[in-house]
Amino acid sequence: MADPILDFWFDFASTYSYLAAARIRPLAAAAKVQVRFRPFLLGPIFKAQGWDTSPFNLYEAKGRYMWRDMQRLAAELSLPFRRPDPFPQNSLLPARVALFGLGQGWGEDFSVAVYHAQFVEDGRIDEPRTLAEILSRLDVDADAALEAAQSDDIKSRLRSEVEAAQQLGVFGAPSFTTGDGELFWGNDRLERALIWAQRGA
Amino acid sequence: MADPILDFWFDFASTYSYLAAARIRPLAAAAKVQVRFRPFLLGPIFKAQGWDTSPFNLYEAKGRYMWRDMQRLAAELSLPFRRPDPFPQNSLLPARVALFGLGQGWGEDFSVAVYHAQFVEDGRIDEPRTLAEILSRLDVDADAALEAAQSDDIKSRLRSEVEAAQQLGVFGAPSFTTGDGELFWGNDRLERALIWAQRGA
Repeated sequence: MADPILDFWFDFASTYSYLAAARIRPLAAAAKVQVRFRPFLLGPIFKAQGWDTSPFNLYEAKGRYMWRDMQRLAAELSLPFRRPDPFPQNSLLPARVALFGLGQGWGEDFSVAVYHAQFVEDGRIDEPRTLAEILSRLDVDADAALEAAQSDDIKSRLRSEVEAAQQLGVFGAPSFTTGDGELFWGNDRLERALIWAQRGA
Repeated sequence: MADPILDFWFDFASTYSYLAAARIRPLAAAAKVQVRFRPFLLGPIFKAQGWDTSPFNLYEAKGRYMWRDMQRLAAELSLPFRRPDPFPQNSLLPARVALFGLGQGWGEDFSVAVYHAQFVEDGRIDEPRTLAEILSRLDVDADAALEAAQSDDIKSRLRSEVEAAQQLGVFGAPSFTTGDGELFWGNDRLERALIWAQRGA
């Protein structure tokens, strides 16, 4: 029987998605669950509820807490972490590149590397140069990939992904959804999402 | 040496605080951490960030998720749970009674019972009758306790507690704070808060 599937919804600007992206592949392998990386954009979803930036910027106490919580959680996982500036960064371009790359076999490694660039190396993930460097390191033709990522096909597929996320009830990132319609929100629900996927198999 | 202390901030209208209130005493005893129950009100804190009701009512997708998440988590803990109607309920009166009771030795049991009344028995925790029934079951003189809870002293102490919470950076419930100024938010951070308190001892 095929491994059960868990969809992993992430936005490249999302801090807690960095932790989930770092953790999900080994955990899923151990759980014998097949993870599908599904980059999307929180921006349109936030906009629909009246927010024009990250809630961590809109609500000061919540933002202050989040940065401290991220520090503690990253330390617990022995993951390097530094607060990016600016925050949040526009995640449109890396999301398009990732979507293209997922069809080419390098999308997952690219996604993990984008998080690393932003939350460890203080890189600007909205700059093509940053993404080109990552692509080169993955032995991908950077110019061709960046061009393909801006094609109408990829643009329209990313819009469809945002709509699909919304229809599944996704309102934040990271989120995890299962084939039987369960939604789990937050890096701290990853283990439960994997268990749910296993049971549904 | 005295046991380290962890402050447990809760609002009686908070769903996830029900889970934390049910879990915290045995977990703290096992961790040899002394927990201080600190009832407070989220209302003034939400109001300060422009919300006039629970964010779970303001943001529909978030609310829908929370009810499902609560169902799953309660099932995992073998805790009964039903969605109260209306939600949220005014938590002012039970918070005052709990604050009074914490000085009398029955505040913790009362708090756990208020959550049970609201999230299991479908009781109205803003009604004196519900609270009087709980008090009687705890062998407390209900009339005297309800009167004491409405004294100027308790009213003013509850206002101070809300201010203290705000100054510690609390923006949601449940929250946990340690003597060295760490803040942990959410039922799912309880274990980490206890570990942090132990280390600081």
